[in-house]
Amino acid sequence: MDRIEIRLSGFGGQGIILAGYILGKAAALYDHKHATMTQNYGPESRGGACSAQVVMADTPVNYPHLTQPQVLVAMSQEAYTKYVGELGEGGLLIIDEDMVKPDGAPQRVRFYTIPSTRIAEEMGRRMIANIVMLGCLAALDTSVSVEALRQAVRSSVPKGTEDLNIQAFDRGYAHGQKLISSRPTA
Amino acid sequence: MDRIEIRLSGFGGQGIILAGYILGKAAALYDHKHATMTQNYGPESRGGACSAQVVMADTPVNYPHLTQPQVLVAMSQEAYTKYVGELGEGGLLIIDEDMVKPDGAPQRVRFYTIPSTRIAEEMGRRMIANIVMLGCLAALDTSVSVEALRQAVRSSVPKGTEDLNIQAFDRGYAHGQKLISSRPTA
Repeated sequence: MDRIEIRLSGFGGQGIILAGYILGKAAALYDHKHATMTQNYGPESRGGACSAQVVMADTPVNYPHLTQPQVLVAMSQEAYTKYVGELGEGGLLIIDEDMVKPDGAPQRVRFYTIPSTRIAEEMGRRMIANIVMLGCLAALDTSVSVEALRQAVRSSVPKGTEDLNIQAFDRGYAHGQKLISSRPTA
Repeated sequence: MDRIEIRLSGFGGQGIILAGYILGKAAALYDHKHATMTQNYGPESRGGACSAQVVMADTPVNYPHLTQPQVLVAMSQEAYTKYVGELGEGGLLIIDEDMVKPDGAPQRVRFYTIPSTRIAEEMGRRMIANIVMLGCLAALDTSVSVEALRQAVRSSVPKGTEDLNIQAFDRGYAHGQKLISSRPTA
């Protein structure tokens, strides 16, 4: 595996940092990679755009700063607008389709949408939209194995909510797989 | 405030990452600075050296990588050995005196020791050694205000443990103040 850079973004309260934490943990503890997770505090931590940057590699990550992420997940309009420009050609872009309305279809990236917040609401817990999104990411990007992610979700969420979170992950994963199969050239 | 780089280090399970999270939060939410916190996963997350890197500044932190930390906190021998060399001249070094035995007194740094784990054990909860250490840091380094740190501790620890954690913070702070007053030239 080469160095993989992933940015998860949204607004405060969506569990973006927890999702980043889980992603890094999955890569390191269960897939035996090296990883860093950086979180920004600042105006964004008071309710605006919020971002977790995860870097994964086979060797120690000495440089946790994103140079050009291969993957961007955006769960809010503000985060989308702020970060979409940094995604390189052929990069993977996943948005929550109810929270983000792109101004025209993004060009030259692999672009997918999921109603992660709506799925979470259907499951009775809006708070698990981040985990639905992680499941979708797992289907669309194979840098981290699905099994490692499932284990990391289980060991990172509050006690008593493990099963619900795994269901959320699996809902997102199923949605992601459907996206791939319906667009075989993506 | 110029850019301040702080590394908190120890081994997995000591709450190093939580301490880093609290430090960044204190700087950003309560002191209105910008901050990033980076955590490394890798072999260290499986029980070895563990580190949280916090960068704080008055302007957004675009470069979360430590160039040369001004502050190093070491709560384990392995972490001390791994990171002590990166501290610059005049930097602040704080160790848990029962966990770290320096090979000779560190030169050209401001060197302080605290029995943070022992104090936490006296308080009945070894797990709060990280918060004792944060209190000590607050006394010895004024980049983040004591009041911001207290608020960040209170809002970040598990519900029901707030008072105990504030007591731990205050024990560490008192120890740090004593260190300063007993070495007026430090």
